Amino acid sequence: MTFRAPSIRDVAKVAGVSTASVSRTLSNPELVSEATRALVFDAVQQTGYRINVSARNLRKQATSAIAVLVPNLANPFFARILSGIAEVMSDAGFSVLITDTTPMSLDDHHFPVFLSLNQTDGLIVLDGLLARDALLNRGTPATRAPMVFACEWNENLVRPSVTIDNEAAAGRAMDHLISLGHRRIGVLNGPRDNVLTKARFKGAEAAIHAAGLELPQRWIYDGDFTLQSGVRAAAHWHGAQDRPTAIFCASDEMAMGFIGELNQRAVKVPDEVSVVGFDDLEIAAHFVPPLTTIHQPREAIGRAAARMLLDRMNLSPQEREHQPVPKLVLPVDLVIRKSTAPPPG
Amino acid sequence: MTFRAPSIRDVAKVAGVSTASVSRTLSNPELVSEATRALVFDAVQQTGYRINVSARNLRKQATSAIAVLVPNLANPFFARILSGIAEVMSDAGFSVLITDTTPMSLDDHHFPVFLSLNQTDGLIVLDGLLARDALLNRGTPATRAPMVFACEWNENLVRPSVTIDNEAAAGRAMDHLISLGHRRIGVLNGPRDNVLTKARFKGAEAAIHAAGLELPQRWIYDGDFTLQSGVRAAAHWHGAQDRPTAIFCASDEMAMGFIGELNQRAVKVPDEVSVVGFDDLEIAAHFVPPLTTIHQPREAIGRAAARMLLDRMNLSPQEREHQPVPKLVLPVDLVIRKSTAPPPG
Repeated sequence: MTFRAPSIRDVAKVAGVSTASVSRTLSNPELVSEATRALVFDAVQQTGYRINVSARNLRKQATSAIAVLVPNLANPFFARILSGIAEVMSDAGFSVLITDTTPMSLDDHHFPVFLSLNQTDGLIVLDGLLARDALLNRGTPATRAPMVFACEWNENLVRPSVTIDNEAAAGRAMDHLISLGHRRIGVLNGPRDNVLTKARFKGAEAAIHAAGLELPQRWIYDGDFTLQSGVRAAAHWHGAQDRPTAIFCASDEMAMGFIGELNQRAVKVPDEVSVVGFDDLEIAAHFVPPLTTIHQPREAIGRAAARMLLDRMNLSPQEREHQPVPKLVLPVDLVIRKSTAPPPG
Repeated sequence: MTFRAPSIRDVAKVAGVSTASVSRTLSNPELVSEATRALVFDAVQQTGYRINVSARNLRKQATSAIAVLVPNLANPFFARILSGIAEVMSDAGFSVLITDTTPMSLDDHHFPVFLSLNQTDGLIVLDGLLARDALLNRGTPATRAPMVFACEWNENLVRPSVTIDNEAAAGRAMDHLISLGHRRIGVLNGPRDNVLTKARFKGAEAAIHAAGLELPQRWIYDGDFTLQSGVRAAAHWHGAQDRPTAIFCASDEMAMGFIGELNQRAVKVPDEVSVVGFDDLEIAAHFVPPLTTIHQPREAIGRAAARMLLDRMNLSPQEREHQPVPKLVLPVDLVIRKSTAPPPG
């Protein structure tokens, strides 16, 4: 099947003006006379002409837009990372298109548009689950957009990435609780198969064992990073006989859901139980009590990912394939606020 | 200047395969043999061919993507609206591209790409400031993408919109405080020129006057919807001699910043001062104390805006221009939790 799209020449012919006039009218309608504008737009309608963005982009060999794939925009964690990306990309002259991968089926025929159709100049993937997906491996290195993975990543994956040392960070959170004198410390995990969950749990468990303490199964709570799973863990904690005096939560949302639910049950934090979060969302400093947590440099993660992508975009596909894959690990801080204190009694 | 882009026929010729094979290789590389794939991708590189997405879209007369312009992705308010939009659009077979307008200069040459170049099938604008902007009026009704405004809107603007009755909602928040016995009620405003600020303040002031009460200038606090402006208002409130016993805050983030700062200063909410928010962010129910606030049906706003846009996209430009402009106002609820109580003493 061949297909002939109406061309700018067809529009010019119908409008009775030059192709240059059509071009000017379409890109800067305010620069041409009202009469020309009317003629051209009429002709556009008559011919069914659609401005050929790809051809236009081809001229400058760039679409001037990058795409960001986000696992869940409803999670406030991603907002400042996106701001960081947008800041750097905007300075470099690129639009940033963001897509939430949650409602997106991976077989969805829309999905690959970002990846192989040269719709975008590059891709930042914040969704760790996609890292192993075959869709990102479609085509060949020559036809794939340059990609950078940020925040989440698959440990076995050789991809350009910007991340933090989740394992070490979780260890620091635990060491803080241990140094306050806690000996019975629980862990509230993220989703079971998530790479962040695994890394944080590994770091937390190692710190507990290094201190000669135990982490029995009954003090390990299942969660999914959400407020609601913090609420469920609090109910569980509150109903148990033998309970920890401190909890490390693998996200701030879970920590706040936990504290909020205990508050409803008239249990005081940190008087009766200490709580450490992970992320340092903006609200964490304003929570009651202000949350002790791991500070993730979210804007910096976004900016670093954007700069790494710009670097990758400046390489040829061959260079991208053969040069060492950059991996940047950003430092994190433990921020001690008021949700942690020595154990009661 | 004429420009001839390398065509699929050029690629087929160089690769020594049919154009159908080239087409199949580019859209479904996993369906062709490795040998064909190698030939085609080599030829793509040699010719400099870029897949012509516009032509492909032309065939089905749709680009299959809509764009959403968001004023500030760092504000968690927008996340669930975006989820609602993505849910409906995904079901209808459209990708959703989101762009944060914060880092975007309005003169930026990237900006109009969404609006007039037929890059998208439609546009949902969550940024009230853009509503009056000339850029959205570029081109003619025939060349402009269908648009729907949600959340924020300019009161004088005749545009398809989905919103809530901000004025009535603020009135209900005030009536709640008045019914608890408060006679000295302050207002913490959003940004000065924002349409939401104006509508909410108007509703709040009307309710105060309807109850025969006063709203002196010193009980009106300037804010900008952020946590930090809630912190500043709390410091201001705490330092004043003559202060209100209740505050209506025009956003939850300001209300939580206010309560968090008072907590730091050992002032108890609602014992010493009652606080009402606006938005019902997910965290509001988990805050300490849980926040009394106006519930905005954010997912429903997003879904309604998406459905309205789909309806608009089914109209011809002529129909869009001549049919009545739809305006949907969704109901809001006051959610009474524990940050409000009768005045002290």
